[in-house]
Amino acid sequence: MQFTVSQIAALLGGEVEGNGEVSINMLAKIQDAGEGQISFLANTKYEPHLYTTSASAVIVGRDFTPKEKVNTTLIKVEDPYSSFTLLLEEYHKFLSYSKAGVEEPSFMGEGSVTGENIYRGAFSYIGSNVQIGRDVKIYPNAFIGDNVRIGDYSIIHAGVKIYADTRIGHHCVIHSGAVIGSDGFGFAPQADGSYKTIPQLGHVRIGDNVDIGANTVIDCATMHGDATFIADGVKLDNLIQIAHNVEVGSNTVIAAQTGISGSTRIGHSCTIAGQVGIAGHIVLGDKTRIGAKAGVLKSIPDGHIDVMGAPTIPVKDFFRSYAIFRNLPDLSRRLKELENKVQKSSPAEE
Amino acid sequence: MQFTVSQIAALLGGEVEGNGEVSINMLAKIQDAGEGQISFLANTKYEPHLYTTSASAVIVGRDFTPKEKVNTTLIKVEDPYSSFTLLLEEYHKFLSYSKAGVEEPSFMGEGSVTGENIYRGAFSYIGSNVQIGRDVKIYPNAFIGDNVRIGDYSIIHAGVKIYADTRIGHHCVIHSGAVIGSDGFGFAPQADGSYKTIPQLGHVRIGDNVDIGANTVIDCATMHGDATFIADGVKLDNLIQIAHNVEVGSNTVIAAQTGISGSTRIGHSCTIAGQVGIAGHIVLGDKTRIGAKAGVLKSIPDGHIDVMGAPTIPVKDFFRSYAIFRNLPDLSRRLKELENKVQKSSPAEE
Amino acid sequence: MQFTVSQIAALLGGEVEGNGEVSINMLAKIQDAGEGQISFLANTKYEPHLYTTSASAVIVGRDFTPKEKVNTTLIKVEDPYSSFTLLLEEYHKFLSYSKAGVEEPSFMGEGSVTGENIYRGAFSYIGSNVQIGRDVKIYPNAFIGDNVRIGDYSIIHAGVKIYADTRIGHHCVIHSGAVIGSDGFGFAPQADGSYKTIPQLGHVRIGDNVDIGANTVIDCATMHGDATFIADGVKLDNLIQIAHNVEVGSNTVIAAQTGISGSTRIGHSCTIAGQVGIAGHIVLGDKTRIGAKAGVLKSIPDGHIDVMGAPTIPVKDFFRSYAIFRNLPDLSRRLKELENKVQKSSPAEE
Repeated sequence: MQFTVSQIAALLGGEVEGNGEVSINMLAKIQDAGEGQISFLANTKYEPHLYTTSASAVIVGRDFTPKEKVNTTLIKVEDPYSSFTLLLEEYHKFLSYSKAGVEEPSFMGEGSVTGENIYRGAFSYIGSNVQIGRDVKIYPNAFIGDNVRIGDYSIIHAGVKIYADTRIGHHCVIHSGAVIGSDGFGFAPQADGSYKTIPQLGHVRIGDNVDIGANTVIDCATMHGDATFIADGVKLDNLIQIAHNVEVGSNTVIAAQTGISGSTRIGHSCTIAGQVGIAGHIVLGDKTRIGAKAGVLKSIPDGHIDVMGAPTIPVKDFFRSYAIFRNLPDLSRRLKELENKVQKSSPAEE
Repeated sequence: MQFTVSQIAALLGGEVEGNGEVSINMLAKIQDAGEGQISFLANTKYEPHLYTTSASAVIVGRDFTPKEKVNTTLIKVEDPYSSFTLLLEEYHKFLSYSKAGVEEPSFMGEGSVTGENIYRGAFSYIGSNVQIGRDVKIYPNAFIGDNVRIGDYSIIHAGVKIYADTRIGHHCVIHSGAVIGSDGFGFAPQADGSYKTIPQLGHVRIGDNVDIGANTVIDCATMHGDATFIADGVKLDNLIQIAHNVEVGSNTVIAAQTGISGSTRIGHSCTIAGQVGIAGHIVLGDKTRIGAKAGVLKSIPDGHIDVMGAPTIPVKDFFRSYAIFRNLPDLSRRLKELENKVQKSSPAEE
Repeated sequence: MQFTVSQIAALLGGEVEGNGEVSINMLAKIQDAGEGQISFLANTKYEPHLYTTSASAVIVGRDFTPKEKVNTTLIKVEDPYSSFTLLLEEYHKFLSYSKAGVEEPSFMGEGSVTGENIYRGAFSYIGSNVQIGRDVKIYPNAFIGDNVRIGDYSIIHAGVKIYADTRIGHHCVIHSGAVIGSDGFGFAPQADGSYKTIPQLGHVRIGDNVDIGANTVIDCATMHGDATFIADGVKLDNLIQIAHNVEVGSNTVIAAQTGISGSTRIGHSCTIAGQVGIAGHIVLGDKTRIGAKAGVLKSIPDGHIDVMGAPTIPVKDFFRSYAIFRNLPDLSRRLKELENKVQKSSPAEE
């Protein structure tokens, strides 16, 4: 990346104050930025850094007026934070999509096709009859089973394992070590106390713009034709467990180490915190919010419900109850005292 | 798979009603099945689908009598669900064991031997002095360290990592990303506040018919000659942690994201739910049942005990206590009122 | 390893009682040890084994006097357990560092350099401009991204994935399936209810003597130039989640399946048990001790604090409160009885 401040201002729809010809090749925080770097000022707490920064340019608000002399070029925009994020994105895209070509040795089975501008890292494995779109980046040591389809602009990081028949949409990012399409956990008890593995013949279907964190696991559906389904825009953090036949609605965000049991349906636009456990065969309504470490045993109807605890109760109630839980020894002692007092004041009763 | 209905009926010990010459090449649910597909009817809830299905054949109970006209061929058996499961299994076996041969490049060290009809995927690594049985399938990017032994008909999925000296039995399935034989977590505190890693010289021993889920980790034992031991028929879900020197008894089933600390022994035929934590150096009796998210701090004697909570208490007691926990603010208020009332009624006391 | 008892005694600073010329090639527990093997006796519980062991040598305390006839050679040292641990370590080092050379095919990009006595396993991938120190062991199917640096004597086990720009110190051990440097979980909500991925441009920095368990994930920092930081001597168990911008102080030990949310700082010499969840943007003081399954929502000041529960309270208080929680149905019943009694004794009041 090598742009002039003027070019960047044009991209952001901003106004330049100072030298627009300065070259920029990197982004940095205002307190760390040096020559050739661009930063931003959104929070007035950081304003003092503006007067001492070595950054070549700083993005500020349209109505910002410096209180002291500024030695750097300013770009004035509506929302400095959003503008900076946009630049970060462009920079990141540039980096993410800069890998291209096929490193050897790599493997691609019969009948598989890939779109233009693809990257296939060394030791990446693509099975048979796989269809991969354009600008897809498959990093080294990734495994893609037979009949998988991957949409345009998706990134499959190093060491991801995608089982046969999985469908992945456009613009997805799958992080290292994630496993997609492993067998659901289903076993039929036998008369002798052992279990027989129930064959898992379904697959996993993932929409567009889905991010899947490192070492997260998504099991396939049980029956042929069925799918464990992750809708458009879902963001899954690391080390999450999604069991067979689960459905996660669009734009739902799930934090690390949460587990969802088989056949449960999660609505759209939900926010589920970390280390949550969700029982099987239940339904969580749209926009549900679940607090960290909650254990969800029953379905939750639609609505902005904040729940916590195991089993879950409304967050406020949980904290009120927990405050008393902390003082249970005191409460218990007071009850005992009261019993003694009442006993004494009515001795005739027994 | 391409069989006639009569052939399938023979396999299942069933009776054909209708055209036995129809060809079947796929299994499906009764509401989804089309031509060339076979389905089953076990639950009367689904009976209406029988009269509209496009399935070429449907497996029903021996004493089932249709209430309306049926356009498909029926196979009558003792237990339709079990029969369908058997078919699924045969189909799955067919798929699972269809891979064979050695894809290149793959690696096998000195002194290693493999049985007949093996599959070694591209970029799979087999160290030195490894012994691998017949019909074993080693998928791409799997790593198998020195001196490992793997029994007949076991499947090692893509990207599994098996450390040196591990022993794996027959008919096991190890899912992608699972790690077997990593170092146990043992550190000796030093005078300066740092920790010295205690070398972990033991190994992992896994019986027959064991399933291990994706990204599950099983650490090796500490001492040379000792083993972390997973007995025959154990089923482990995804993302489970099994620490050094743990023993899991036969036919025990453990759900996702559960962790078992070092040197704990779990009995046979136990059922352990998801996200459970089990302390180190304790013993869980046979057939123990542990509820989701429980924290097991003490040994549990033999018997069908259902426990929950952290620390664990019987499930019924847990739910009874939890019901009152939810209303603790109310209980606390009532105690306060009572205190006031008693205080007022005996003003002389203070 | 093939040494005489006298050579081992010299290494340990111990005294030989018996035949010092016996050859030793293995370590084992006193109850299992056979010819050519050395064991130790630290706990008097195991003393009876000393009189029946087939071990060729046993390490005992300097002031130990056998009560019966001993047929093995003794090495008398100050602390038998420590001495045995030292031997284990030497043996382990011998094994760990015995791999050397480059197995083919393996991949190394432009501008990358490696020190002497390195091991690069087959299908290991090293990107461009990577710097790797001496005696580093990179096992098969490991992935090391561009610009990574790895210090001397570090071991990268099979299938580890290290994203670009990560810095790893000397004498580190990274176990199989660990992912270092994956994108932090950051998303900006958009007006239409979807989320935009915030590019993660920082990296991960790991000090010296750090152990990282199997399938553990450490995300990179958000901003360019920032690092998620794991200080010297930290020991991380398996399946741990370390979010973006977290800092873990030196010699802190964290057990399996614990998760630390973004931007939290953990002090030095802390002990954090398994399945703990720690909120984002908080600070845990030095030497903090957190019990298993705790949920830490607020900062904890410096000091040896033992906490448990979610939210956390002091361990003793937690167990006291939990004891009453178990009996809440009884407490509730007693309160009800008391209410009835008081009601009856003051009927005039309402």
